Amino acid sequence: MIDLPTYDDVAAASERITGHAHKTPVMTSRTVDEAFGARVFFKCENLQRMGAFKFRGAFNALSRFSPAQRKAGVVAFSSGNHAQAIALSARLLEIPATIVMPHDAPAAKVAATKGYGGNVVVYDRYKEDREQIGRDLAAKHGLTLIPPYDHPDVLSGQGTAAKELFEEVGPLDAFFVPLGGGGLLSGCALATRALSPDCRLYGVEPDAGNDGQQSFRTGAIVHIETPKTIADGAQTQHLGNITLPIIRRDVTDILTASDAQLVDCMGFIATRMKLVVEPTGCLGFAAARQRKAELKGQRIGVLLSGGNVDMARFASLLAP
Amino acid sequence: MIDLPTYDDVAAASERITGHAHKTPVMTSRTVDEAFGARVFFKCENLQRMGAFKFRGAFNALSRFSPAQRKAGVVAFSSGNHAQAIALSARLLEIPATIVMPHDAPAAKVAATKGYGGNVVVYDRYKEDREQIGRDLAAKHGLTLIPPYDHPDVLSGQGTAAKELFEEVGPLDAFFVPLGGGGLLSGCALATRALSPDCRLYGVEPDAGNDGQQSFRTGAIVHIETPKTIADGAQTQHLGNITLPIIRRDVTDILTASDAQLVDCMGFIATRMKLVVEPTGCLGFAAARQRKAELKGQRIGVLLSGGNVDMARFASLLAP
Repeated sequence: MIDLPTYDDVAAASERITGHAHKTPVMTSRTVDEAFGARVFFKCENLQRMGAFKFRGAFNALSRFSPAQRKAGVVAFSSGNHAQAIALSARLLEIPATIVMPHDAPAAKVAATKGYGGNVVVYDRYKEDREQIGRDLAAKHGLTLIPPYDHPDVLSGQGTAAKELFEEVGPLDAFFVPLGGGGLLSGCALATRALSPDCRLYGVEPDAGNDGQQSFRTGAIVHIETPKTIADGAQTQHLGNITLPIIRRDVTDILTASDAQLVDCMGFIATRMKLVVEPTGCLGFAAARQRKAELKGQRIGVLLSGGNVDMARFASLLAP
Repeated sequence: MIDLPTYDDVAAASERITGHAHKTPVMTSRTVDEAFGARVFFKCENLQRMGAFKFRGAFNALSRFSPAQRKAGVVAFSSGNHAQAIALSARLLEIPATIVMPHDAPAAKVAATKGYGGNVVVYDRYKEDREQIGRDLAAKHGLTLIPPYDHPDVLSGQGTAAKELFEEVGPLDAFFVPLGGGGLLSGCALATRALSPDCRLYGVEPDAGNDGQQSFRTGAIVHIETPKTIADGAQTQHLGNITLPIIRRDVTDILTASDAQLVDCMGFIATRMKLVVEPTGCLGFAAARQRKAELKGQRIGVLLSGGNVDMARFASLLAP
């Protein structure tokens, strides 16, 4: 039986990250409000430090290290935002960081991780198991492994985004949150149930990989092949042992969105709201747009989870 | 002798537009601050209503109409942001609006102007004089012509952007503002001299059309051919009879930036700050980057004037 984190952990995380993470702005758009016939509040985690909500959970987790853990260091495996979030948080807290990245990770991401002072260990993603490498490094050097989502301190940190949203705009009728491994969604679920208990809460994952939806419905963690989707932040293969029970208990439903819908949302948000949001970051808005009819007259939250998209890729996705 | 507007006019404009224009956010970036070794404050007018500072001046000007003027209506000529700003302000104030647009204006801009309820009159930009058409319409139907920049109420309205910036962050050492016809720059000059009198104030125009720089140095309004630049908001051919004297009196210097520098800034701001800024909107930042060395340790303001760039164009400019 796992001891699930509670809203108290989100509140404690909030205190730990204050002054380090940005309290990101909540934006509104008259165009969106008119299109929806509703009031839509966008929580802009694309404007978070290093460009995604991931910094919240990483900084919270590393803040809780004991002196011995701090001295030995942290290890994380990720090709994306989690790696950079750990590397940056570690630098700020003066903790040595080792990041296990695939040999074909984009040069920009490797450079950014190194730029934050992270020690990058490369593995062959076709032949080697990154989790095993992470565990081996942890055992050999006494490092603490921080996984990308299935960790109480990580998900409690992510939940601070929802806490800030509700504290700024008050209770909502419905709230749409991107879903990958469930760290963001489960953390936001804890905050939602505490601060806006009647709010319908939706996790949104790519059409191409609806393992979350399947797991939500069956109650068992469904594993899938890495889904083929432009939402690279939601290419997770399964939910976690901690995230799933929270999601099953506190989330209203899991929805999906297609790549075409994500590109359309990305262009819409760039054109009308002047914000760069990565494909994964558009999942919540894409689902809300599909359900416009049933949201009429309501107060809606949409979490834009990140903005880390290479400009060449952004340009090619938006090119006509 | 022209009676130039003063800071009191900016303050009065500020009261008129409150609740109608957005008080746009001031953003900062640790990456920029580290690169500059300075503190840089970005005033985000790309997040203003209809995507540019132009709404401030248009709404202020239309707010001052007499009952008779309101009833007869407004006329404006513009292919860009001013047209939309007038159309939107007129709709909000229930004033009929006629907008004179070139026959080859982008369909999206024509549609947006019509969407705001504007009555669009098309002219042939190679054969007809839009100013004459505007004046004829004004005379024939008793409409009030609101020019895009050389008008006391327009420029006083634009100055509210600088007023908000200084009120939010306090005095600055240097402030960089895009320059087309000078409405934004002269309005910001009034606010700067009142609220941060020692601040160095720079207007920045495209390399391709430095009429402002020439006019600033000689004191006479220099007319040029429409400059070939991607900064379409600064393709003006001359400063105005009201904007030039204010600029000569209150501005420190006029600088220029190349198209290549604007594209580079546009990509940087999109990648690092997750904001869509149109090429013209990057003029101030482009000039500040060139002067990094002399800005060290200082408090810098950069006005991002607008974000209205077609996504296909944005993508093609940023494509590698």
